[in-house]
Amino acid sequence: MKLGAGGEFDRIRAVLQRLGPDAGFIGDDCAVIPEGPGTLVISVDLAVEGVHFRRDWLSLEEIGWRAAASALSDLAAEGASAVGVMASLGVPADAALDAPAEVMAGIHAAVHAVGGRVLGGDLSRSAQWLVDISVVGRAVRPVTRAGARPGDRLWVTGALGGSRAGLAALRRGEAPSVEARSAFAHPVPRVASGMALAHAGATAMLDLSDGLGGDASHLAAASSVGLHIQLLQLPVAGAALAEAARAGVVPAVFAALGGEDYELLAAVPPSFSVADAEAMQRETGVALTPIGECRAGSGVHLLLGADTITLPGFDHFA
Amino acid sequence: MKLGAGGEFDRIRAVLQRLGPDAGFIGDDCAVIPEGPGTLVISVDLAVEGVHFRRDWLSLEEIGWRAAASALSDLAAEGASAVGVMASLGVPADAALDAPAEVMAGIHAAVHAVGGRVLGGDLSRSAQWLVDISVVGRAVRPVTRAGARPGDRLWVTGALGGSRAGLAALRRGEAPSVEARSAFAHPVPRVASGMALAHAGATAMLDLSDGLGGDASHLAAASSVGLHIQLLQLPVAGAALAEAARAGVVPAVFAALGGEDYELLAAVPPSFSVADAEAMQRETGVALTPIGECRAGSGVHLLLGADTITLPGFDHFA
Repeated sequence: MKLGAGGEFDRIRAVLQRLGPDAGFIGDDCAVIPEGPGTLVISVDLAVEGVHFRRDWLSLEEIGWRAAASALSDLAAEGASAVGVMASLGVPADAALDAPAEVMAGIHAAVHAVGGRVLGGDLSRSAQWLVDISVVGRAVRPVTRAGARPGDRLWVTGALGGSRAGLAALRRGEAPSVEARSAFAHPVPRVASGMALAHAGATAMLDLSDGLGGDASHLAAASSVGLHIQLLQLPVAGAALAEAARAGVVPAVFAALGGEDYELLAAVPPSFSVADAEAMQRETGVALTPIGECRAGSGVHLLLGADTITLPGFDHFA
Repeated sequence: MKLGAGGEFDRIRAVLQRLGPDAGFIGDDCAVIPEGPGTLVISVDLAVEGVHFRRDWLSLEEIGWRAAASALSDLAAEGASAVGVMASLGVPADAALDAPAEVMAGIHAAVHAVGGRVLGGDLSRSAQWLVDISVVGRAVRPVTRAGARPGDRLWVTGALGGSRAGLAALRRGEAPSVEARSAFAHPVPRVASGMALAHAGATAMLDLSDGLGGDASHLAAASSVGLHIQLLQLPVAGAALAEAARAGVVPAVFAALGGEDYELLAAVPPSFSVADAEAMQRETGVALTPIGECRAGSGVHLLLGADTITLPGFDHFA
C-alpha cells in the first residue's frame, strides 16, 4: 500500500490502525508470499457504487465484506484455498477520514472468515465509492467450468434466493428479515465446500453470482454439455418463501432468478453419492443438494414439473 | 473475466478479439498459474480519470499502458519477474463499445514489453474511467525498501524529469516533445534492471512514482538510514532541460520534483562497482547512475553544491 504524504497517508494510517497486526504486509508496494506446492489461482472483482451496491442499503463494512466475498467466491469455485486479497478503494472526496478503514474492516472480516489475509491495496479519490478486490489462492487440482461430462450430477451448496429476498425488501424501502439481510449483506464464500468438492472429483464448478439461470449456461457452454435442472429440487432459502409468495411466483423460480447468492454449482461424477454429500455437509457445515445432471447436448434445461423454461441472466451494463 | 449476457458480454468480446491468442486465460473467473520456484510478489495500482490521468491528454491505449506500467514498476522495484496482470476497468456508460478493448490493448502492450501476460480482469460501468491493475510476479530474492545499510551506494536507473516535462507541456495546452510525451505516456517498467540489481545484491529498492524527494524518504524511513543524494549527479532527461530553463529552476531540482518517471532507486553495497554498473547497463540497455549513499542517521539530505534542500512529495488527495 502506497504511503504518500498528506491526506492519503492519513487515510492509510486509519486503515492500518483498524487492521492491527494483520497489516504487516502493508508499507511496501508489493505483497510477498513464499510459494508453496500446487497451483496459483488469482481473480479480480470490481464493485462500483450505484452499479453493484448502494450506500443507503449497506454499511461501509458490509460494502467491504460483500466485495471481498464476491471475489473470494471465485476462488471457492476453483476449489482453491484463500491466500489473501489485495484491495483497491476509490473514495469520494467528502468521505469521512476513517471511512476507508470501515470498508477495509469488512474486507478483512470476509477474508479471515475463509482463512486468508489482507495482503495490501491502493487508495484513490474517485467520484463514486469503488472496491476492487484481487484474490490469490492455491489449488491442488483447480476446477474450471469446462470439465463437466455427460452423466455427471449437478449439486448446489447452501440455499438460493436469500439475497434476492433481501434486495426485494430494500427496494420497497423496508428492512429485510435477519436471514435475508445476512444473505444479501454478508454472503459467505464457499471456500471449504469448493475445496471438498474439488477433492471429491468435481469436474466443473462455478459460483452463482448472476442467478442460476444465467450462470448455469456458462458451465454448459464451457463444458459442451446440456444441463438438466429440476427446479423443484432447488434448496430455496427460507427468507425467499415470503418474497416469492408476495411476487406470486413459484419459490424455486424466485430462487433461480436470484443473483448474488454466491453458492457453488458443481458437476460431480455419479460415483459421488448422497452419503458422500452428507459426510461433506457434516464436515463443512454447508448443505449440498442434488439438482440435476449433465447430458450430451447443450444449453440449460430448467424443468418445472413437466415444463421446460428459460430464465434470463443479469447484466450490469443493461 | 466474467462472461455475462448483453452489453457486458459485447464489451468483453471486443476485448478478447483485441487480445487474440493471449486471451487464453479469460473466460473463467480465475486465472490459474502453475507455481514455480521462488517467491510470489503481488501488487495493485488504481488509476482514476481526473485523479491520475486526463482523457484529453492521453489516448485510451496510453491510459492502459500507463496504468499497467505503474503497477509493473512495483514488481520491478521488488526485483521480480513479471508473470502477468489482472485488469479491472470502470467504463463510463457513454464510452464506445470498443473503448475498453483500446485500454486493454495498452495494458497488454505494457505487460508484453516486460515478458508477462494479461491473466484476466473485470469490467463495470462507472462514472469515471478507472483502471485497477493487479500484478503477479516471482522473485528469487525479493528486495524491499527496508534493507539499506550505512555505506550502501545509491543508484538510479534511466533518466529523471522526462514525464514532468511532458506534463508541463500538456498543462500549457502544447504538444510535448516526442521524448517528453514518451516518458509521460509510455514509461517502461524497469523489470530487467530490477532483477539485475537484485541479483547484484541490492539491499533496498523502490520505484520513483511520486518524485525522488518524496519516494527517497520512504526508503530512508523503512531502512532506518539517512540518504545523502548529490542532486547534480542526477541523470536528467534531455526533455527536462528546456522545461527546467522555462521554469527557471536547476535541471536536477526540476528532475527530482518530477513524478511518474518509474525509474528505480536502489541501495547496493559498495562492492558493486562502476564497472559492474556499466556491464549491467550493456545487459539491460538502461542507464545506471550513482547519485549518493546511505549513512547512519535518518531522512533525506538532498545536496545541491554546498546547500542541503528539502523537496516535497506529491499527494493524490491534496
